[in-house]
Amino acid sequence: MHDVITFGEAMLRLSPPHFQRLEQASGFELTVGGTEFNVAVALSRLGIPTAFVSRLPENPLGRMVANKAREHGVDISHIVWTEADRLGLYFLELGASPRASSVLYDRAHSAISRIRQKDINWKRLLAGTRIFHTTGITAALSRSAAQVALKGMHTAKSLGITTSLDLNYRAKLWSEAEAQRVMSLFMPYVDVLFTTEEDTYRVFKIKGKNYAAVARKLHQRFKLKIVAITLRETPSVWHNRWTAIAFAKGTLYEDITYDLEIVDRVGSGDAFTAGFLFGLLTFDDIHKSLQFANASAALKHSIPGDLSWVTRAEVEKLLASPRSLRISR
Amino acid sequence: MHDVITFGEAMLRLSPPHFQRLEQASGFELTVGGTEFNVAVALSRLGIPTAFVSRLPENPLGRMVANKAREHGVDISHIVWTEADRLGLYFLELGASPRASSVLYDRAHSAISRIRQKDINWKRLLAGTRIFHTTGITAALSRSAAQVALKGMHTAKSLGITTSLDLNYRAKLWSEAEAQRVMSLFMPYVDVLFTTEEDTYRVFKIKGKNYAAVARKLHQRFKLKIVAITLRETPSVWHNRWTAIAFAKGTLYEDITYDLEIVDRVGSGDAFTAGFLFGLLTFDDIHKSLQFANASAALKHSIPGDLSWVTRAEVEKLLASPRSLRISR
Amino acid sequence: MHDVITFGEAMLRLSPPHFQRLEQASGFELTVGGTEFNVAVALSRLGIPTAFVSRLPENPLGRMVANKAREHGVDISHIVWTEADRLGLYFLELGASPRASSVLYDRAHSAISRIRQKDINWKRLLAGTRIFHTTGITAALSRSAAQVALKGMHTAKSLGITTSLDLNYRAKLWSEAEAQRVMSLFMPYVDVLFTTEEDTYRVFKIKGKNYAAVARKLHQRFKLKIVAITLRETPSVWHNRWTAIAFAKGTLYEDITYDLEIVDRVGSGDAFTAGFLFGLLTFDDIHKSLQFANASAALKHSIPGDLSWVTRAEVEKLLASPRSLRISR
Amino acid sequence: MHDVITFGEAMLRLSPPHFQRLEQASGFELTVGGTEFNVAVALSRLGIPTAFVSRLPENPLGRMVANKAREHGVDISHIVWTEADRLGLYFLELGASPRASSVLYDRAHSAISRIRQKDINWKRLLAGTRIFHTTGITAALSRSAAQVALKGMHTAKSLGITTSLDLNYRAKLWSEAEAQRVMSLFMPYVDVLFTTEEDTYRVFKIKGKNYAAVARKLHQRFKLKIVAITLRETPSVWHNRWTAIAFAKGTLYEDITYDLEIVDRVGSGDAFTAGFLFGLLTFDDIHKSLQFANASAALKHSIPGDLSWVTRAEVEKLLASPRSLRISR
Amino acid sequence: MHDVITFGEAMLRLSPPHFQRLEQASGFELTVGGTEFNVAVALSRLGIPTAFVSRLPENPLGRMVANKAREHGVDISHIVWTEADRLGLYFLELGASPRASSVLYDRAHSAISRIRQKDINWKRLLAGTRIFHTTGITAALSRSAAQVALKGMHTAKSLGITTSLDLNYRAKLWSEAEAQRVMSLFMPYVDVLFTTEEDTYRVFKIKGKNYAAVARKLHQRFKLKIVAITLRETPSVWHNRWTAIAFAKGTLYEDITYDLEIVDRVGSGDAFTAGFLFGLLTFDDIHKSLQFANASAALKHSIPGDLSWVTRAEVEKLLASPRSLRISR
Amino acid sequence: MHDVITFGEAMLRLSPPHFQRLEQASGFELTVGGTEFNVAVALSRLGIPTAFVSRLPENPLGRMVANKAREHGVDISHIVWTEADRLGLYFLELGASPRASSVLYDRAHSAISRIRQKDINWKRLLAGTRIFHTTGITAALSRSAAQVALKGMHTAKSLGITTSLDLNYRAKLWSEAEAQRVMSLFMPYVDVLFTTEEDTYRVFKIKGKNYAAVARKLHQRFKLKIVAITLRETPSVWHNRWTAIAFAKGTLYEDITYDLEIVDRVGSGDAFTAGFLFGLLTFDDIHKSLQFANASAALKHSIPGDLSWVTRAEVEKLLASPRSLRISR
Repeated sequence: MHDVITFGEAMLRLSPPHFQRLEQASGFELTVGGTEFNVAVALSRLGIPTAFVSRLPENPLGRMVANKAREHGVDISHIVWTEADRLGLYFLELGASPRASSVLYDRAHSAISRIRQKDINWKRLLAGTRIFHTTGITAALSRSAAQVALKGMHTAKSLGITTSLDLNYRAKLWSEAEAQRVMSLFMPYVDVLFTTEEDTYRVFKIKGKNYAAVARKLHQRFKLKIVAITLRETPSVWHNRWTAIAFAKGTLYEDITYDLEIVDRVGSGDAFTAGFLFGLLTFDDIHKSLQFANASAALKHSIPGDLSWVTRAEVEKLLASPRSLRISR
Repeated sequence: MHDVITFGEAMLRLSPPHFQRLEQASGFELTVGGTEFNVAVALSRLGIPTAFVSRLPENPLGRMVANKAREHGVDISHIVWTEADRLGLYFLELGASPRASSVLYDRAHSAISRIRQKDINWKRLLAGTRIFHTTGITAALSRSAAQVALKGMHTAKSLGITTSLDLNYRAKLWSEAEAQRVMSLFMPYVDVLFTTEEDTYRVFKIKGKNYAAVARKLHQRFKLKIVAITLRETPSVWHNRWTAIAFAKGTLYEDITYDLEIVDRVGSGDAFTAGFLFGLLTFDDIHKSLQFANASAALKHSIPGDLSWVTRAEVEKLLASPRSLRISR
Repeated sequence: MHDVITFGEAMLRLSPPHFQRLEQASGFELTVGGTEFNVAVALSRLGIPTAFVSRLPENPLGRMVANKAREHGVDISHIVWTEADRLGLYFLELGASPRASSVLYDRAHSAISRIRQKDINWKRLLAGTRIFHTTGITAALSRSAAQVALKGMHTAKSLGITTSLDLNYRAKLWSEAEAQRVMSLFMPYVDVLFTTEEDTYRVFKIKGKNYAAVARKLHQRFKLKIVAITLRETPSVWHNRWTAIAFAKGTLYEDITYDLEIVDRVGSGDAFTAGFLFGLLTFDDIHKSLQFANASAALKHSIPGDLSWVTRAEVEKLLASPRSLRISR
Repeated sequence: MHDVITFGEAMLRLSPPHFQRLEQASGFELTVGGTEFNVAVALSRLGIPTAFVSRLPENPLGRMVANKAREHGVDISHIVWTEADRLGLYFLELGASPRASSVLYDRAHSAISRIRQKDINWKRLLAGTRIFHTTGITAALSRSAAQVALKGMHTAKSLGITTSLDLNYRAKLWSEAEAQRVMSLFMPYVDVLFTTEEDTYRVFKIKGKNYAAVARKLHQRFKLKIVAITLRETPSVWHNRWTAIAFAKGTLYEDITYDLEIVDRVGSGDAFTAGFLFGLLTFDDIHKSLQFANASAALKHSIPGDLSWVTRAEVEKLLASPRSLRISR
Repeated sequence: MHDVITFGEAMLRLSPPHFQRLEQASGFELTVGGTEFNVAVALSRLGIPTAFVSRLPENPLGRMVANKAREHGVDISHIVWTEADRLGLYFLELGASPRASSVLYDRAHSAISRIRQKDINWKRLLAGTRIFHTTGITAALSRSAAQVALKGMHTAKSLGITTSLDLNYRAKLWSEAEAQRVMSLFMPYVDVLFTTEEDTYRVFKIKGKNYAAVARKLHQRFKLKIVAITLRETPSVWHNRWTAIAFAKGTLYEDITYDLEIVDRVGSGDAFTAGFLFGLLTFDDIHKSLQFANASAALKHSIPGDLSWVTRAEVEKLLASPRSLRISR
Repeated sequence: MHDVITFGEAMLRLSPPHFQRLEQASGFELTVGGTEFNVAVALSRLGIPTAFVSRLPENPLGRMVANKAREHGVDISHIVWTEADRLGLYFLELGASPRASSVLYDRAHSAISRIRQKDINWKRLLAGTRIFHTTGITAALSRSAAQVALKGMHTAKSLGITTSLDLNYRAKLWSEAEAQRVMSLFMPYVDVLFTTEEDTYRVFKIKGKNYAAVARKLHQRFKLKIVAITLRETPSVWHNRWTAIAFAKGTLYEDITYDLEIVDRVGSGDAFTAGFLFGLLTFDDIHKSLQFANASAALKHSIPGDLSWVTRAEVEKLLASPRSLRISR
């Protein structure tokens, strides 16, 4: 019924307007986000039937998360609801050079962090799915969240479903040592890995003379089908450059670099992941998938909130003329 | 150095604008509140040197709470700071008849709920203070918060400091049975009790044919110096009526009833408490204290946020002409 | 697959904040609404699988309408998309006595007004549905919209599906004479009629010494199964009173009257309709349906926007204690 | 060229949103107002060619005032511009019972307060005008503003132009004694006086057993052609009642009383004045003028800002059915 | 009475805040704009008596357009009012690289698109005017709008009034072929043409090795008095470079290039046009006109909304020191 | 009791949102600022006990200023309160290239401008203080403000307290000649001077072949202990470069240059001053003080409002890795 299932946390995101510091805020803009949630939304918007699996509190905030998923067509029928526990939150401060943007998590004790194996029957849930996706963030939330995610990966793998993992190291959630220990448990089951050079080094201590070398090492060490490495340069907070590579079956795929004006960079990696998985399902062509993913990620930077409010047609229009900045009228 | 010390929790308060339901919000108005915090702010604004004692996380949100206390002149030098734990939050939905306003707490696991006896040296802290105030909410937060509050009450009593307690039963925090068990531990040390008929019944199962009878029973059962009972009628969500009585040494004190248009009723009980304690410290006259407290509470209903942004002069102006609604220009 | 299908228009609703006149606005609050859309959303929120059928332009505004339906779980898979035509809009001015609220329609030439019979295969679409609902507004939009709606009613009736019509006369859309001519074509196929005394008179020139008499006459003239008449008193713009009656098989059903503080009265009739249809599907009890519908409508008045952001549990809580206005905390 | 000329001050009005106290504001809503400015705008909106005469600083704030006059069609070609001096401001706090709304003036040293006789050639400016209007506020601003206003009154009178004065006593601008001294200089030249019972007593110590008696006394003492007395009852801050009487040539004219929900009562007296002067110029009928004025004032209370954003058709619609509060759609 | 008359459409412009996509908006910022409206406003602000001629619906939105014209001193007495038809709207999405800004028009069926020859007596209206200005957008609105505009051009030309046309090709309104056919009818009557290289090619298929060559070709083909070509480079959405050239009587005029930070580029071409026409009327010097026009256009990019909220003094200050970016205090 | 005392004016700052021109504003964002106020706040935030001395009106606006100082821990017990006089205001327009930001002062007749020598007992107030700081702005406000400031400088010097002056020339407040005359009276008492090359030339006509030469000349002419010169390059309004030098005892100290994205540059000089004074008090090392000051100033540019909402830890983090712009999560 779904082509993709993503599993993880979705949070309220509270952000003061106009580059205010958190400490000076008198109000927050409210959106919903979370890496696997973002991937699910972006895939659904691109036309891929997708379900988001999580555990949410049965209260207005939990319902808001589910509503926002549904708004974009994401299936929420497998969400686990609870009367106990809270919804995770995160506070986002948008910066300007030389002050980087910054996140303050308030996600401890969230409903998803207390999920248990018995809450989800992965075998039944994954039947008929083509891709299962989760990330290192879910693994970092709690021991039980990691166990449930791992079970999902394992089950998917055993069912012949493509498994996808975004390494997504978060220093505010766990140490590098913990990440290495836990993520190493996931790697045997991963088909497609999304990562960055920095995260690769912090979690696996893998380094290379360039990103191609890093990709190759990851590929070899973990027997991956595909490795995608995203590359962000940050000449300033408001101006970034973005590209990514993919490595599969001995071939390195590259793409152009996008010059970006940053409205909101949170969720751009997720837009990349969604674009890439969309490509795999749609084109069955790694280079095209990479190109689509990069265009999708590039557009995301221009949109406030975690979510990638674009259409397939808009991504394709950018791919067709990536340097056209004329007003459309 | 301080005339009053209050002890308890302060939270971020997040409220959607314009009577929106939480579930439909796209932004929150942000203020800071909490019953003992509100009392401290109101007392300080009335000119009483006051300290607020709590435990706060050392992050922008914790600093915001301290800032907002300082903004009104409250002493924060005794706050206990921690690198761990979170700041409590609450979400407030403002209603309209027949939909009552509603609070969604997200205060579990807050820094104050994890305070320990060793964090506060009450004896040293209370030296020179005239009144110590806390509430049933602090007692409801956690076993350790209750213990620290109780130690504060006990210490204050033993030092000859006037002790003040607002019963403040919160059904979303604990059961009536738990409240009865814990609050009964506090009552032997209480000099001044603030309560309502409903809370009195829910916590102590004390009922009377009218509020005077309830006050008398409380007075007798717990050997209180003063009992103040606030009385709110709610013909509608936007229109309330307010008065209160006080009972001391066998005498019942009454006051006029205020017709209120409700901008924000949260914190009005705290404005009453602060007004009353201000009166005790300033007039040494229970009837005057009651009148000042009622006027203070009445004004609070017209002000957004938990805090009572009034001056002593404004309360006195209302006392002088409680029915004058002409625009002042 | 759906228990209910509603057919009609959804519009962007643009409303200046804080009781501003349209002419003085410098910004608009944006929501989505339309009578059949509102009914679909409310039913879906109450747990009834519901589809909304309409014709929408394939552009960001059309997508927004579909998103907002999905957000509440409404099925949008039968919406007819078009590259041509526009989305209807309406501008809403919120008033204060003695200035009534006012609507400025900008819905001419909308996509739905240009729908054609061939756009919808009612027979296939209605298969398995329990209730089909449309309103006099759809009939007023254009000749072709009326024809498609009528075909839907006729088809539903012939399939043994319960047909529901809200008379909903809008003087800004058509004359009383036109309304009478067109709506008379619908009446032979109607099972459940929602109306008011005023609309009944304006469209059908039916009057009675009281609303019961009006209900009885409607019942007889049009061989209806159920007539529901809503009754609003408007002592002021910000304070209304609401109740409704239902008449079925010779029996008149009545309910209590709700005192309402008006945040936004638009859509309250739709909340009534949804509540009533929910009741029919759930309780199979007309009195209970009426009570549920009234409570649902009463709550709607307290919520900004056209939509009824409530849960079934909240309606039931109001039914259990319709006069409780205490803050919930 | 103009039928009416008004002379006085226009200010920026800064008001915190949502009933905030000034002291807690983090932003202001900005509008422009001032009694004679408001009258000019309302008259122009009703179709009367009107000029506003004042002295403004040549800076963005001064230009904003002129723009806002022009926006409503008011002629600004006689405004005196200056490179020196400032624009007056006022801060408005909107209240809720029992807290009355309140104004904090910051209008000292304004450009208009420093106007001089030589700045205005009243004789040339008034040629061809039918009504000249000013108020006690202008007289209160400064000695020179009073002199220029008085010269205007005197000149108008000598040219046979109808002179109109709103007594408008402002306790925050001058004492009752000062007001009496200065306003007594104006009264010999006044044809039409607008006032309230309270202002009449405070300025002239004239009292009567009812408002008719007050009107009669004013009429006699000052040889007025017309006296209009507005009557506001304030059962609460959000709910007022309004009516007014007029007295002319021995006849007392009365009208219905309007129940008002208060969005913003500032400027409602000016809407009355404009409605009355409009009536005099249009109907030449005092009773009709009074009725039009009251309906105009009643509507103003529902509109944010000082200005009366209504049309003649809207006032006439209210006159035709003053109790109709149904939503118009 | 007016030095300039412009003829065309003005619309409500609705724009979501903070770079939001339309689809995600929950509110719109509201301004008024339209190319000929913008030119009229900018000219009036620069001190040129200017009238805007259009057809508007007699409702609050139509009045808002007229008000906004008057706010800047534009004469609106020749606007044609109608009880039928709607006001055109446009939705504007502000972008960030690589997402260009985008316009969604909702202007079909607008009042101006249904204007008829008999609605305007150009001969009477144009008497005494020095410049008549319209654009290719008006010609694109409808056959009748094009006819009325053409009649205006023709009449102006025959009266010896300078005629001005901005080619302004809009791909969302018509095809290049249609544009070529209709605009060719206008060209014989044009004295001053404003265009870009791109529009020139799209409409007339005229190309040159550089803009000077294009100008020369236009000049020759259409016997123009003056051709002005604006030149925008778009290294990014937030950073543009702007200059323009003019060609007249065989002479090419050039100017410096401005580096622009883009707050809102909509209307900058209109600010150029207004600046140029202002120059022609004021300096009678094409080079000075070009310089003034460029400075005016450069400033417009820094101002939200379609309109050029600048003064002549501010343009002259920029001309005097075009590279001074120090804060002025 | 305080380590630092600053003396000067604090104003309401009113700024239209989103780069609006003042003339087009419909609302203002409200903050509080003023150079010596900003320095006091920044020092207090860095942990230095600091008092702000000024004269404020006893009204809600004056209280707001005091509140905002207290919010950051600044001691306000020496503020002189008055029932007369007004609070100064300033209006700030934020620009975009080529439109520079601009300030419109409305600070004439402010309470501080009317301060008198007898209002402040400098000798008592300064006892125990380590640094006294004021600026050329205070000297520019009025003759009496200059006198009181000068008396403060003189007294501090005589008490052996370090005296600090920011030259801060403001062309909108006084002429260069006036500034030279008055500031020359201050210079004999100054230990630490903060200035720019431009201000140095405008006030003292001192020029040099580079900033080091300017520093040396200032040092010699005025026998200063330390001169700090800040250096801003403005390639565009939204992108600046910042560094500063210090000169003391014959040594020139330099630092890196920061690339800045400008959210709000107002107050950045004050953040520099505070950082430098903090350094002097904390490190007793001029180079470290300079580095800390520059990092502090750099961060300030990214924060809306006059105030430097940073912590010492954040400044130190920037010093540790001044080029790290990765999002922190």
